[in-house]
Amino acid sequence: MQHIVLKSYCDGLPKPTDFALEEIETPKPEDGQFLVRHIWASVDPGSRSRLSGRDSYTGAQALGEAMGGFNVGIVEASENSDWPVGKLVTCAGGWATHSIQTGRGFLAPIPKGLDLPLSYWIGVLGVPGLTGWFGLKRVGVFKPADRVLVTSAAGPVGATAGQLAKAGGARQVVGIAGSDEKCRWLIKEAGFDHAINYKTTGDLDAAISEAMPKGIDILFDNVGNTMVERCLPKMRLNGRIVVSGQVADYSLPLAERHGIQSTDVFITRRVRMEGLVVFDDARDFPDALTAMANMIAKGELQLKEERFDGLATMPDAFCGLFKGENFGRRVVKVGEE
Amino acid sequence: MQHIVLKSYCDGLPKPTDFALEEIETPKPEDGQFLVRHIWASVDPGSRSRLSGRDSYTGAQALGEAMGGFNVGIVEASENSDWPVGKLVTCAGGWATHSIQTGRGFLAPIPKGLDLPLSYWIGVLGVPGLTGWFGLKRVGVFKPADRVLVTSAAGPVGATAGQLAKAGGARQVVGIAGSDEKCRWLIKEAGFDHAINYKTTGDLDAAISEAMPKGIDILFDNVGNTMVERCLPKMRLNGRIVVSGQVADYSLPLAERHGIQSTDVFITRRVRMEGLVVFDDARDFPDALTAMANMIAKGELQLKEERFDGLATMPDAFCGLFKGENFGRRVVKVGEE
Repeated sequence: MQHIVLKSYCDGLPKPTDFALEEIETPKPEDGQFLVRHIWASVDPGSRSRLSGRDSYTGAQALGEAMGGFNVGIVEASENSDWPVGKLVTCAGGWATHSIQTGRGFLAPIPKGLDLPLSYWIGVLGVPGLTGWFGLKRVGVFKPADRVLVTSAAGPVGATAGQLAKAGGARQVVGIAGSDEKCRWLIKEAGFDHAINYKTTGDLDAAISEAMPKGIDILFDNVGNTMVERCLPKMRLNGRIVVSGQVADYSLPLAERHGIQSTDVFITRRVRMEGLVVFDDARDFPDALTAMANMIAKGELQLKEERFDGLATMPDAFCGLFKGENFGRRVVKVGEE
Repeated sequence: MQHIVLKSYCDGLPKPTDFALEEIETPKPEDGQFLVRHIWASVDPGSRSRLSGRDSYTGAQALGEAMGGFNVGIVEASENSDWPVGKLVTCAGGWATHSIQTGRGFLAPIPKGLDLPLSYWIGVLGVPGLTGWFGLKRVGVFKPADRVLVTSAAGPVGATAGQLAKAGGARQVVGIAGSDEKCRWLIKEAGFDHAINYKTTGDLDAAISEAMPKGIDILFDNVGNTMVERCLPKMRLNGRIVVSGQVADYSLPLAERHGIQSTDVFITRRVRMEGLVVFDDARDFPDALTAMANMIAKGELQLKEERFDGLATMPDAFCGLFKGENFGRRVVKVGEE
């Protein structure tokens, strides 16, 4: 089997040379374990926070250790009768062609009878889609008639959150993205009311104010402090800021991060700001997945994917996330179906 | 009657010369109105945010307009049968010896039969005490065994919040204050477990970490961004930051405010930060006041007051709040009982 390890700690933007592909012996499952052969693997922007060699609440990644991530795969050898050979699963197997699973942690069978691409289970039906769901509904306490602003809106988390808001009766859903192509997709395919290309709009503050003259009930943010500071003065009474991701901050040392200064708005507008890690909602995943699978089947939830081929492409696919290169969920085919 | 108006917009720290005392004709109540003769008047740090001549969500104060604030008073003339002459009330009458009330807005009769100083109704049983109560309980979602850090802890909001936490079974209540005398009072009278004098402690970060080695469940903050940034890395999983006041920020232009940078903690520790304005909880005031009055009667809730004498002292009393001069609730006697 092959896997990809962290070779050097990242300083600033991660580079493909920070990683190395290694050939190792395929492990054999011990009692209670099983071996999954991966078909799809994900690159996740949130992984960046573990790669600086500094203490991290989520656990710093050690040099030489295989990179974490999510997978769709098939059980290839098993010493666990609950997970027999041939079963399709989603799991946290990382940047690798295979992984040993114990039956615990992030792991779920892929239900049969749904005619969906397997890669969706690490996309709209995986961690990003679930983050959109629980971020909007539990943390954002979404209510019909809310005005919702989504950043990194063409990414899998943002696109899911925005479409769920629209389907749930939002009065207005506005997305911010980094290309005209993404903005067109948000409006024409994903049903957003309005989209702003932050790279060409000039004055982003003014563009948001113009698009949302009545203000923002929910800021669903995947960018970080700059965006929160920008939007705070536009928040409506009892507004909610969902801290879903911070892609602009991951590579910045603390001192270089944009500070959030306009915190008087927390009092004057009774704003609430809260972060999430979606695994806290694991108990409620089945209901959310059923609902989202139904929406996909009915064409109410669009997913944009960028497919890469081969494990060796993962460092490039990952590093591109921080330059805004991606358009939709980046998934990497690492084995045959 | 006399009242005090804003004479100049405040730039930085407010100065007594920014205000002027004026003699005006005592108004007569019209139909449905009544005239209250004030006995006590409050100075409130939150008023600072209205005095810069800039747009403010809470409504900028106009030059020449009487300063707002809270009072205990007695109805002296009435054209409203619900509020007869002789009734004792709390109201929002401002920096003045008298006010006309309409029966709406912040106004409540003072219950009879409680042997408490009248000034308490603009202190622990007024806006500051209620802010402590609802900040801790509704916004902070206080739970027994929480570890609570309170800033401006010897002030009326902080002291109430800390004592309520302790009475509610907090595992640990730590206060930050600006003198050894305040710290002694917090521990000996108010029952805090520990108190830190931020003016003499040297490394405040280290002092907090040493006092709370297991971290913070609730930061009840009256200071502003510096304190939030300082405490974010010490927040425990699912920690709550109650934005109750921002006394260090009120006089600072946006660009000079300390930014909150460590917002990665919002995700990694699932932190929630939320502001409050206590009037949102008005429906629940009676229950809170009954509970707090009972605690005071049983000696479970201490109140420290600084009493000033005469309306003319109000500008000095107010301006001193921003130098940390006050120890407890500043109340000004503006008329006889």
